[in-house]
Amino acid sequence: MKQVSINLTEMSGSPVNSSLPQYVQLYQYIKDEIAAGKWQDQARLPSVRKLADMLGLSTTPVEMAYQQLLAEGFILSQPRRGYFVQKLVDTPASVPNEPPPPQGRLLRRHHSYRYDFHMSKNDYSYFPLTEWKRAYNRCLQEENVSDLLFYGDPQGEEGLRYEIAKYARSMRGVSCSPEQVVIGSDAYPLLELLGRLLRPYGNDFAVEDPGYPQYPELFKQNGFNIHPISQQEDSIDQKQLRASGATIVSVSPSHQFPTGKIMPISKRLELLQWAQDCNGFIIEDDYDGEFRYYGRPIPCLQGLLPDSRVIYLGGFTQVLSPSIGIQYMILPSILLNEYHHLKHHLFLECTAPKLHQRTLERFLRDGLVERHLRRMRTMLRKKHDAVISSIRKHFGKLADISGTGAGFHLILSLQHPASEAELQALAEERGIRVHSIEYTHIRRTQDPEYKSDNREFIVGFAGIAECDIDEGIRRLADCWLQLPDTSGDSWP
Amino acid sequence: MKQVSINLTEMSGSPVNSSLPQYVQLYQYIKDEIAAGKWQDQARLPSVRKLADMLGLSTTPVEMAYQQLLAEGFILSQPRRGYFVQKLVDTPASVPNEPPPPQGRLLRRHHSYRYDFHMSKNDYSYFPLTEWKRAYNRCLQEENVSDLLFYGDPQGEEGLRYEIAKYARSMRGVSCSPEQVVIGSDAYPLLELLGRLLRPYGNDFAVEDPGYPQYPELFKQNGFNIHPISQQEDSIDQKQLRASGATIVSVSPSHQFPTGKIMPISKRLELLQWAQDCNGFIIEDDYDGEFRYYGRPIPCLQGLLPDSRVIYLGGFTQVLSPSIGIQYMILPSILLNEYHHLKHHLFLECTAPKLHQRTLERFLRDGLVERHLRRMRTMLRKKHDAVISSIRKHFGKLADISGTGAGFHLILSLQHPASEAELQALAEERGIRVHSIEYTHIRRTQDPEYKSDNREFIVGFAGIAECDIDEGIRRLADCWLQLPDTSGDSWP
Repeated sequence: MKQVSINLTEMSGSPVNSSLPQYVQLYQYIKDEIAAGKWQDQARLPSVRKLADMLGLSTTPVEMAYQQLLAEGFILSQPRRGYFVQKLVDTPASVPNEPPPPQGRLLRRHHSYRYDFHMSKNDYSYFPLTEWKRAYNRCLQEENVSDLLFYGDPQGEEGLRYEIAKYARSMRGVSCSPEQVVIGSDAYPLLELLGRLLRPYGNDFAVEDPGYPQYPELFKQNGFNIHPISQQEDSIDQKQLRASGATIVSVSPSHQFPTGKIMPISKRLELLQWAQDCNGFIIEDDYDGEFRYYGRPIPCLQGLLPDSRVIYLGGFTQVLSPSIGIQYMILPSILLNEYHHLKHHLFLECTAPKLHQRTLERFLRDGLVERHLRRMRTMLRKKHDAVISSIRKHFGKLADISGTGAGFHLILSLQHPASEAELQALAEERGIRVHSIEYTHIRRTQDPEYKSDNREFIVGFAGIAECDIDEGIRRLADCWLQLPDTSGDSWP
Repeated sequence: MKQVSINLTEMSGSPVNSSLPQYVQLYQYIKDEIAAGKWQDQARLPSVRKLADMLGLSTTPVEMAYQQLLAEGFILSQPRRGYFVQKLVDTPASVPNEPPPPQGRLLRRHHSYRYDFHMSKNDYSYFPLTEWKRAYNRCLQEENVSDLLFYGDPQGEEGLRYEIAKYARSMRGVSCSPEQVVIGSDAYPLLELLGRLLRPYGNDFAVEDPGYPQYPELFKQNGFNIHPISQQEDSIDQKQLRASGATIVSVSPSHQFPTGKIMPISKRLELLQWAQDCNGFIIEDDYDGEFRYYGRPIPCLQGLLPDSRVIYLGGFTQVLSPSIGIQYMILPSILLNEYHHLKHHLFLECTAPKLHQRTLERFLRDGLVERHLRRMRTMLRKKHDAVISSIRKHFGKLADISGTGAGFHLILSLQHPASEAELQALAEERGIRVHSIEYTHIRRTQDPEYKSDNREFIVGFAGIAECDIDEGIRRLADCWLQLPDTSGDSWP
């Protein structure tokens, strides 16, 4: 049995380590020797007392270093025999002591636009910052920390679910009890959950075409066959839906994404009838249902008939801000048992942060969300009207406007020989952001035969300053209609 | 063509509605008439001017009511002909105007325990509330709201990813750049993402048995075959792993859940070699790696070799609080391209709230997390020692203790004729919470032949007050060892 030799000079030599506690230096030294293969497998280490004597230390640091090496498996202890070097399989050339440093402070890469008609950006200068901060601070001050900071209800806090049920009823005509509300931090975890929940109800999933592409992408990955259903004048083609054999459909009836069309009540009732007939489900995405600028808000589809087979998706991303991380879905009663089973089985916790859930609960209870919405609607209506009148002014009869009166965007369409992608790039060069509608089309992009001169764009108006709207639209018309740039300044 | 008849008495009759604007009353009245089937399909409505005259109103409210009815599809407009009632398919007996109210304020149901040895509860009285509040408020005050409140980087804020890379390196020996860090609100969305990301790398997924059951449940649902691998003295059985044919394995090497065992370096290197050999991946769950009470923390497996095939999972749930909603995973470089593809394809946004991400970034930068950890370790070591000495005192030689020295829990085992479930229920009756280890076993629970008198429990010590530990353990010993209850007071 070989005894290992401790090189005392080496051990006390390194000035880098001299500020570390003795036991750490000792541990590091022995670890490096073993990792480098300098000490033979099964070689016996000196006893704690002997090594302490050799080094002129008390036994404590030696004891601690050996304990650490034992815990990490570099050495083995054999009762009444001592400590032995532990063989490493395939000792790597070097076990790095320090990982490489991160590659320096990253730059925040934000492409910035002088005229930003982003489709879901909001004007956050209207956000009730002071009230939010106050409500947040009051949660931290007034609530029991050991409850506030621990895991909460995996479905979402009960108090917030109650407030959401009330809010969704009064603002959107949703018919539900707090037991049906499931809270999440974002649409993604809720949709993943829904994918699992709906799996027993069929393999065939219908989506709007054009529509929000997250649905086909995510549910395809969840194993569903995707059936794109054409968007007609005011609704998806319900004959096509019935013919598809799908038993689940996702729709955005109160402000279709992206067309902005509103599904009339007759079509809504027909759709509910379809779900009844095939024992299927309708996913109602009410992403911006709170924002309607003329007349009363259109009540949602979910509340139209009692016990409808509708999963309602709503949230506070558009209403307040995505940075808060609170979205929700409202499940039909018949799915609740399966939801609870799944929740239990997958050991789910709520993905929405409890601190913000409690803050939002106070916010809703005090009527601050509704007050904020009233202010927002006034502000957004002005911008909505300004965009329409600017488009009429600068594009004249060369552009059509549709999908107006609601939400954060409308649709501008024009006949143009250049493609939507080319036109979007052209706008970008002038510092203008508009979104081509192309990515929302499923079959059109797959169809090599598709030909049309009709170009459609999603023009968001919520995030841009009111005073920039007219100039932004003017420049857009200039560059798309091939007029010379008369603005006098170049971009960027 | 039938003309509809407007009942003026009815219209102005309802006192409930008299506070509503005129156009809303008119809209409601017409909607109810149509929904109730009182007005025939295709019947013509009076022109705007005519109805305004009939009702003695200006044309504005009538115009607005008609616009609303048009938008909702109750009526149709035909150019130069007027407005017509729109047929409803299968008019339901009643279209409810108001959904039923939520079922009243819910009670918060919390089973409370006098002696709570919960395995992952923490002592939140140590949470740096004032500092957190201050950092949060400074974010809201100092940062640009239009950036702070809008969508951020779907992978997580770059500033926070940089701080996490630094933190994970210094605290856990993780070797990574900020580009490898992916932030999420909770383990669930990160694991769902991982399920999709690892799908091309094999169908066979190995898990620790016993182990954290979320892995087998979730990855089974993601289409993987699950292979439970026995936990040996200090590691999973690597021969069994190789024989299983799995190419992905999840492990918790720095404090195995639930046994608390530490995987020695030789076994770690062997596991890394396995991943190399089969082009597989190791998911390293480092759920409480920051908490070690004796010696230095065990560095993680991920940083042991450069470019290892390890996905490291960490977070701030145990370190700070689950209520903040920030967890992270560190991907090996070879998975980054696929991650970006998936992120783009699924239209993912970051599930962790940006407001908390920015707050935590400040917290880490100012060293407040490390300061908090130092205080926590001192506090937790005391509780850890107290639980061990109380178990020795009250159970004597009748109980074994294992998995000590780290994390928030240890394992208490004893020989007992009653089942773990029965013993847990017995403890609950006395107001004591301990967790039976049973739910962490995969094959044992499926094996009808399994017989043993050995009962194991997860005893958490972080959340219970230090002064309650001894009495809690004493009562536990009393009720399990069938001694008469001598505490003098009854529970509950």
